[in-house]
Amino acid sequence: MSHVLVLAGGAVMMGLAACAAEVRPDPLASVRTPAPVVTEIGSGVWCVRFGAPEKFTPDTMREAPPRLDDLRRLPESGALPFALDQIRCRLTTSGCTVYVPCDEPESEIYGFGLDPTAYRQKGLRKYLTVCAGVIGRTGASHGPVPFYVSTRGYGVYVDTARVPWVHVARLTAKDAVSADRGAGTLKTSEKELYAARPAAGKGEVIFDLPGNPSGVDVFVFGGPGMKGAVQRYNLFAGGGAVPPLWGLGLKYRMHAEANRDRVLEVAKALRSNAIPCDVLGLEPGWQTHAYSCSLKWSDERFPRHREMTDELRELGFRINLWEHAYIHPTSPLFEPLKLRSGDFLVWGGLVVDFADPVAFKIYGDYHGRELIDCGIDGFKADECDNQPLDDGTPFNYPYFTAFPSGIAGEQMTQLYGTLQQRSLLAQFKTRNRRTWGDARATSALASPLPFNLYSDAYGFGEYLRQTVNASFAGLLWSPEVRDARSFDELMNRIALASFAPQMCFNLWYLPHPLWEQFDREKNKAGQLLPPPERERAAARIRAAVGRRYELLPYLYAAFHRYRNEGVPPVRALVLDFPDDPAVRGIDTAFMFGDALLVAPFLDGERARRVYLPKGTDWFDFERGRRYAGGSTVEFSGEAGVAPLFVRNNALVPVATPVPFVGRDTAFDIAVRVFGDRPAPFVLVEDDGETDDYTRGALNRVTLRWSAAEGGRVERAGGFKVERYRINCWEPVAAK
Amino acid sequence: MSHVLVLAGGAVMMGLAACAAEVRPDPLASVRTPAPVVTEIGSGVWCVRFGAPEKFTPDTMREAPPRLDDLRRLPESGALPFALDQIRCRLTTSGCTVYVPCDEPESEIYGFGLDPTAYRQKGLRKYLTVCAGVIGRTGASHGPVPFYVSTRGYGVYVDTARVPWVHVARLTAKDAVSADRGAGTLKTSEKELYAARPAAGKGEVIFDLPGNPSGVDVFVFGGPGMKGAVQRYNLFAGGGAVPPLWGLGLKYRMHAEANRDRVLEVAKALRSNAIPCDVLGLEPGWQTHAYSCSLKWSDERFPRHREMTDELRELGFRINLWEHAYIHPTSPLFEPLKLRSGDFLVWGGLVVDFADPVAFKIYGDYHGRELIDCGIDGFKADECDNQPLDDGTPFNYPYFTAFPSGIAGEQMTQLYGTLQQRSLLAQFKTRNRRTWGDARATSALASPLPFNLYSDAYGFGEYLRQTVNASFAGLLWSPEVRDARSFDELMNRIALASFAPQMCFNLWYLPHPLWEQFDREKNKAGQLLPPPERERAAARIRAAVGRRYELLPYLYAAFHRYRNEGVPPVRALVLDFPDDPAVRGIDTAFMFGDALLVAPFLDGERARRVYLPKGTDWFDFERGRRYAGGSTVEFSGEAGVAPLFVRNNALVPVATPVPFVGRDTAFDIAVRVFGDRPAPFVLVEDDGETDDYTRGALNRVTLRWSAAEGGRVERAGGFKVERYRINCWEPVAAK
Repeated sequence: MSHVLVLAGGAVMMGLAACAAEVRPDPLASVRTPAPVVTEIGSGVWCVRFGAPEKFTPDTMREAPPRLDDLRRLPESGALPFALDQIRCRLTTSGCTVYVPCDEPESEIYGFGLDPTAYRQKGLRKYLTVCAGVIGRTGASHGPVPFYVSTRGYGVYVDTARVPWVHVARLTAKDAVSADRGAGTLKTSEKELYAARPAAGKGEVIFDLPGNPSGVDVFVFGGPGMKGAVQRYNLFAGGGAVPPLWGLGLKYRMHAEANRDRVLEVAKALRSNAIPCDVLGLEPGWQTHAYSCSLKWSDERFPRHREMTDELRELGFRINLWEHAYIHPTSPLFEPLKLRSGDFLVWGGLVVDFADPVAFKIYGDYHGRELIDCGIDGFKADECDNQPLDDGTPFNYPYFTAFPSGIAGEQMTQLYGTLQQRSLLAQFKTRNRRTWGDARATSALASPLPFNLYSDAYGFGEYLRQTVNASFAGLLWSPEVRDARSFDELMNRIALASFAPQMCFNLWYLPHPLWEQFDREKNKAGQLLPPPERERAAARIRAAVGRRYELLPYLYAAFHRYRNEGVPPVRALVLDFPDDPAVRGIDTAFMFGDALLVAPFLDGERARRVYLPKGTDWFDFERGRRYAGGSTVEFSGEAGVAPLFVRNNALVPVATPVPFVGRDTAFDIAVRVFGDRPAPFVLVEDDGETDDYTRGALNRVTLRWSAAEGGRVERAGGFKVERYRINCWEPVAAK
Repeated sequence: MSHVLVLAGGAVMMGLAACAAEVRPDPLASVRTPAPVVTEIGSGVWCVRFGAPEKFTPDTMREAPPRLDDLRRLPESGALPFALDQIRCRLTTSGCTVYVPCDEPESEIYGFGLDPTAYRQKGLRKYLTVCAGVIGRTGASHGPVPFYVSTRGYGVYVDTARVPWVHVARLTAKDAVSADRGAGTLKTSEKELYAARPAAGKGEVIFDLPGNPSGVDVFVFGGPGMKGAVQRYNLFAGGGAVPPLWGLGLKYRMHAEANRDRVLEVAKALRSNAIPCDVLGLEPGWQTHAYSCSLKWSDERFPRHREMTDELRELGFRINLWEHAYIHPTSPLFEPLKLRSGDFLVWGGLVVDFADPVAFKIYGDYHGRELIDCGIDGFKADECDNQPLDDGTPFNYPYFTAFPSGIAGEQMTQLYGTLQQRSLLAQFKTRNRRTWGDARATSALASPLPFNLYSDAYGFGEYLRQTVNASFAGLLWSPEVRDARSFDELMNRIALASFAPQMCFNLWYLPHPLWEQFDREKNKAGQLLPPPERERAAARIRAAVGRRYELLPYLYAAFHRYRNEGVPPVRALVLDFPDDPAVRGIDTAFMFGDALLVAPFLDGERARRVYLPKGTDWFDFERGRRYAGGSTVEFSGEAGVAPLFVRNNALVPVATPVPFVGRDTAFDIAVRVFGDRPAPFVLVEDDGETDDYTRGALNRVTLRWSAAEGGRVERAGGFKVERYRINCWEPVAAK
């Protein structure tokens, strides 16, 4: 027992030599800088490999193979602004750091997933943890994705299921020491001091992956432009998800305590009020036990549940069941999964080892047999996220959780939502059925997953920003309507939801229908609106939902483009208008399909300014007024009717709303014609609910219009039914 | 180029075999659970070693060797509630997890450093990063310390410079699956759901150290009681720091833009207003360049600076200089340190590789030669902290920063403040001078460092909580007075500061003296109070500072006990009253020395309730009223006069305030006598400013009193001067 110096120059170092079990390792001895190994793995997609990548990553756990043929069909990607072997990597005893050149004074960088708070990412430090809460502008979110795109026309994805720290052109390397060797001025205010940032555009984008000391794949995506890079990323991921047609309709989530009778009552009220709706969501109470989950129907609250689901189906409703993948001891899944789960419980339930193929299948098969085969069409995968810095939430297993498969708890936390989705999706695929679900966490390469993210963040601005940010990262976003401080705000939230990949009212807190009383406390207390007011509320909601249903065929076509070309159906303006610098900062408007620009009223407002990008003229969709690109419009109107613009020379098919989308539902369509020489528009016609479209049972219905000849419809493909009836063409006379 | 399944059971796993540079490693292959190697390294202090600990840890970088002889002098430590080999460790490819038993339903756990928000730590998840901001109740702070104590009478320290996550009896292991297999009830409110925590007292305290895959030392400290465990920790760390006597006086930090004339003017104003003060602090502007730092005097703002420091010394002031250790290109230190620094710049300056003994010495020697030898007695080491999750602060080098010594950026971030302090302290030690400085970051085993932490947090409650939390972790805390919403709050903040290890007014934002106008904006605008109000303000401040100076000899004695016995001079009640469960939750009152209990008025209040612990009676120090232990007192008074209680049978030496503490200052002391049979009190007398006391130049001045014989003074030791004149004894008659 003695206390000795362990280093020469020991003015700094001492140490206890008490128990010399093993020699302290020299950290410098383990530093490696492996050479990049570059491979073009698809057209305009390169893999830059350093060392030996980890076993569990979004790529190794991916849903679908890259769509190599579709990648080849994209336009040429153009030159990258750096050579691929300029990307560097440094490996230490416990981590790995990737340095990507970013010497681009004029560029902007976007991406990193469902970030609720930051849009332009340069200068920021990201902490890409799956997270239920907002942590500054770090990008911690329900869908953090280590992928970014640059306005210089490329994208970079670092394939990791670790929690990366990313420094986005933020740090100043020592060799960039400033030439300013003069005395300088004394800065004394915090503002002055903290303004001293690295020169804009200098530096690198640096990914730090503590926890991964072995190696990593970096994927680089060419353009053209950011849109091209996003397309390549989505096609590399396997192509965008195609929803069932009913999935694009309204999803109405029931009160948490609703029982069988209440569910049927609300379902019928939706129909009797003529509010279109396709999906009813049941909250945790459908089960005998939650939280954690038994995943067994409660006979107490839902006696004869099969009868109920049949009855709802007759009314045209699909059922979506809430769940989380923490398995309660009373669940039939508990024993089979007990040894195939993590070594900590969450809410007293097992954490499923989805990285074990057997556990993955046990979980899925149970759902298939007990639920999907018994009338269930979708699931809401809740609580698959994390709150790394909050002690108040017990739905965390720690990063060091051990799983039998060998996946690290950290990796599982990042991938849990994705793997749960995949386990469920596999069951639908086996049955040749589509699904459209909800998930509170997703990771990279998620484009093919038909699950919509929702969020604990709820600011209107956050919701809008998530709408645009999702489009850079292969994510679907459901800005669910959950609460509002005023009826106008409610209507604006509904309007935003009506232009999202999924339109959802999450009314778990309202015992009575939304239109009878939107105020949470009053609804709970049974203080409902008088009948005339209810009817007025129902009418406004009906109209806003109706707008969604009018555009179902239009949106469905956009989703098929998402699958085959990787173009997100809802996306940031900057993707479509790369040559207009004025759109670079706009995160409050977005493209909906190819022709429409949506600029929702914020919060409870009824007016706003809308910038219309350069490169085309624009029409006000409702009023027909024409504007020059590059102009800013002062727009006012009714809350719940989002300002909607259409680019010149576009055709927009508008359907008569249906109460719900059945397998045989046909759509009556009027085609609105904007401009003199509209581009053709291609509708996609299929059964809308199986995967037969992937095997040829799909028509492309091309709409063409010219002033001389009027409208023309060309139908081509192997689907035998005409679901789209093009009834009329409506040229919009510019005002 | 092909896309293949890489695993059997590949329903889950695919992967690109594009560039098969190295085989993906199997994470399970590297999991190890090394056996503990247990050594008693000091009396009641055990090292439990797992694998090969890292090279850079607080232990290997420690300031001083353990005080083994003093450890032996402590009372027997008693039995631990677990066997040392029940502590487990799991090593993976990139990290290490330590599991410490904690099967203690009735216990409380305290510690983890300067936590501003949590006091009782059970059930929490800690993220012990050095951090300038508050992150929930994670313990991220300016002084995070992976050390805790349990009311069961032991302490545990995990020796790491990594950022640990700690789960404090918070997680439920799978084998603890609940017997509740019944149907359970449906919980539907967030409140209900999140209340579902692990059974109190079950489980383990788990330290997760991502980034350290090699091994770790766990140190366990016996009692008796928590106080014994804290004492052992502090003695193991090398014993508590002893301040220079002047260090216990008031430190007044100048306006950021003050120049030579202004500094002299304020110095003289302090003297002419008879406000005791020992130290003046100069802000960044003493230098030619900040931020980053040149560390050279500015001739423009401080011409003939040596004359100025001499003049201030004549007035009885010591000078403390602000600095941060980011070296500007114009600094004389830049070239010598250029190759001995990290690979990123902070504010355009070098980040010193303090783990390199040469850099450590270059940095220190420069300070010694240029500053300490030229009249400087202390430094404020600012900005040595971190803000891992905020993008707004540029004073961060990232966790992956590479340093020539091989220390990881993460480890350097955790140790930067400590090493900077040590580099400066070494210079004072060489010169046989003491110092008393400020630092914005410290780590474990910091007890011997004469630097006081301050904080960006500023809530009154946070400041008080930091006062008590610091006492569990070998930290000195300076709740600096920086701002207030009212004069009463200002006075209460001053009162709190007067009972802290360091009393500091940090008035960098006030051009004019505090008593002329405490309001920031008005002071700046020159809107000063009318002279009579100024004088009233000065009088109240003078009185509050005077209370500090009255207790200087009393406090100085407590610091010597900190050094030799490890008892923190300022500490949580729960350390002194382990048998009174009612104090377990009290983080708004504390012990000051052995006899005094301080319960400051909060915010701008002038009344509060004070619980007086069981086991002794108590006196109101000012008014003499006697209370039974276990009672709660409603106390009201003047803001700035903190409610102060003294335990029965205590002697409290009270000095006549001096304007400042010179080397020859003698103190006139009246001894207040509380109770009939007071315990003796030992004052410590020495030169107050060199280390000669460690070589025998120190007297122990024992005060004794009995009703029969009155007061008696016994002086023993090798110091030749009598600085304490015991003038009178004042028995306090209980009212």
